Amino acid sequence: MNTQHESQPTRHPLHPSPGTPTAFERFPVCVLGLGLIGGSLLRDLADDGWPAFGWNRSAKTVDQATEDGYDVSGDLTATLQRAEREDALVVLGVPAPALPEILDAVGQHAPSVGLTDVTSVKGEVQALVEDRGMADRFVGGHPMAGTAHSGWRATLNGLFDGAVWVVAYDRAVAENEPPRAWFTTFERVVRMAEATGAITIPSRSGAHDRAVARISHLPHVFAETLAMVGDQGGPLSLALAAGSFRDTTRVAGTAPSLVRAMCEGNRDALIECFDEALEILNQAREELEHKDLSALTEAGYAARKRYEATTKHGDATDPRPVIRVSPGAKGWVDQLLSAESIGARIEIF
Amino acid sequence: MNTQHESQPTRHPLHPSPGTPTAFERFPVCVLGLGLIGGSLLRDLADDGWPAFGWNRSAKTVDQATEDGYDVSGDLTATLQRAEREDALVVLGVPAPALPEILDAVGQHAPSVGLTDVTSVKGEVQALVEDRGMADRFVGGHPMAGTAHSGWRATLNGLFDGAVWVVAYDRAVAENEPPRAWFTTFERVVRMAEATGAITIPSRSGAHDRAVARISHLPHVFAETLAMVGDQGGPLSLALAAGSFRDTTRVAGTAPSLVRAMCEGNRDALIECFDEALEILNQAREELEHKDLSALTEAGYAARKRYEATTKHGDATDPRPVIRVSPGAKGWVDQLLSAESIGARIEIF
Repeated sequence: MNTQHESQPTRHPLHPSPGTPTAFERFPVCVLGLGLIGGSLLRDLADDGWPAFGWNRSAKTVDQATEDGYDVSGDLTATLQRAEREDALVVLGVPAPALPEILDAVGQHAPSVGLTDVTSVKGEVQALVEDRGMADRFVGGHPMAGTAHSGWRATLNGLFDGAVWVVAYDRAVAENEPPRAWFTTFERVVRMAEATGAITIPSRSGAHDRAVARISHLPHVFAETLAMVGDQGGPLSLALAAGSFRDTTRVAGTAPSLVRAMCEGNRDALIECFDEALEILNQAREELEHKDLSALTEAGYAARKRYEATTKHGDATDPRPVIRVSPGAKGWVDQLLSAESIGARIEIF
Repeated sequence: MNTQHESQPTRHPLHPSPGTPTAFERFPVCVLGLGLIGGSLLRDLADDGWPAFGWNRSAKTVDQATEDGYDVSGDLTATLQRAEREDALVVLGVPAPALPEILDAVGQHAPSVGLTDVTSVKGEVQALVEDRGMADRFVGGHPMAGTAHSGWRATLNGLFDGAVWVVAYDRAVAENEPPRAWFTTFERVVRMAEATGAITIPSRSGAHDRAVARISHLPHVFAETLAMVGDQGGPLSLALAAGSFRDTTRVAGTAPSLVRAMCEGNRDALIECFDEALEILNQAREELEHKDLSALTEAGYAARKRYEATTKHGDATDPRPVIRVSPGAKGWVDQLLSAESIGARIEIF
């Protein structure tokens, strides 16, 4: 990982992996939408010498990003025409509701560029792309990073350093073989994610959405609920609230619109694990009547310990297994499926 | 609060409040049970010059504490006889299941000492004490502090600094007036808690137990459930888990026996808010079907923001209102009820 980060505050160096050529080409990247994720990505790439440029709808953001020294425009058509001309990888960084309109513009003004996105639900985007016949040049993405803030002023270097960046390879498992350009887009998305210090994990959209329903969307629903129940206890409850309440309700402080976009956009997967959770809770409620919560507490403890075993513990190395792939090579789809099933990171060689 | 803490690592200074005589008498304190809470209390008091001594059942703990320079014995009878002779405040620091046996020993060998405890559910202890006719000399306590560790080796100075220490004043609201000795015990418990840097909040046992069910016990149940649901998603889920999962499941890492003791011991209050939570979740589940989580997310966000407004934000002063009381003075019970209702801290003058 990037150990030079603190001593080089304005430039975010590349993170060459052991098998990665240290001087692979920095290809053009066009970021559409310069909020926290898109803006931070533009910062990391441009500061590292990538020919990266961007677009944002609001003139204020364009002004701020330009003042900060970035190559940014408020003209979507011109930006897309430039992306097509320069063969840039286009990153869809706009909020999910804006995606259909932006995809239509891409279809019109940048008919051949490779595409990726950064939204937190992958199935919906994949469907939008397939509806428009763009699947041959699309590789979904989800950098799992964020802060409590949003907008250009919240952007920062190093946001993705050490974070997981999911790369959705749905097209690779379709019936017919993807065109050569799709493999290039796949490789570019992985290289770009690696350049930010992210840990690239491959997953099909459906598996991704089911996973994040469990480890992000349901926790948000539970946090909202706990915050309400604590609050309903009145001032004494809130006055006595300590670490367990503070931590379990923290993400209830997320803007409601963001929580809604995630949860509603991932409804089906969320409902599936929601029902699992309700079954566990109803069982626990029953056990509590008999003053015996041994089943819940033993199982919950074991689950948390398994999670802790998969995470970093303050050291610089990531404990995840690494699978090295060569896009399009014989057996590479099986490698991706294998990496997905064990949550392994991939590297391209 | 204690701003000298870091520069005086071995001695934990007193925390005189504005209206407190800075040189009030350090009375004898006898701590029974030297685990994380009892042991850390003995450390703070003894290191600050209090005539504090302790007892623990295990010879190993007695040896360790003695090696560390504390006045500790493995002889319960002798320790209680000494407490009686020296008119010590006896702190019941043993786990809840051991309380009946220890209370019986107190009744036999220390028939007149004042008593307090440090367990996390107050109704059960209050009932045990009333059953034994000890209510006239008992003031319940609950220092809301802890770490993930337990036992003497986990004890440390300053554990209670800035933490809430609930003082249960049930006896003051009983039909007949408490004897003078009860008021002395009440004042001693508050003074002792203040000496550790804790924030003293008065609450009757029932109100305390209903509050902690909401802000501690239910969050533990939810954390266990989320940990299980995440784990059931397999390696990909755990690999993608980031901040929201980490924080909402953190307390699932608590030893199952501790979670059971809290939750089972507070069954009735926990069931009440558990059912409130299930109602909110079932409603949210219904809203999710219609892709409209606005009610849940708006209410959860508002609740979390109200909580945040009641907590400290890194500054040295505690934002809670302060009510100054004089135990036994006219109107003082109304002051305690008022403090309980708004979650105010109290100070004795």
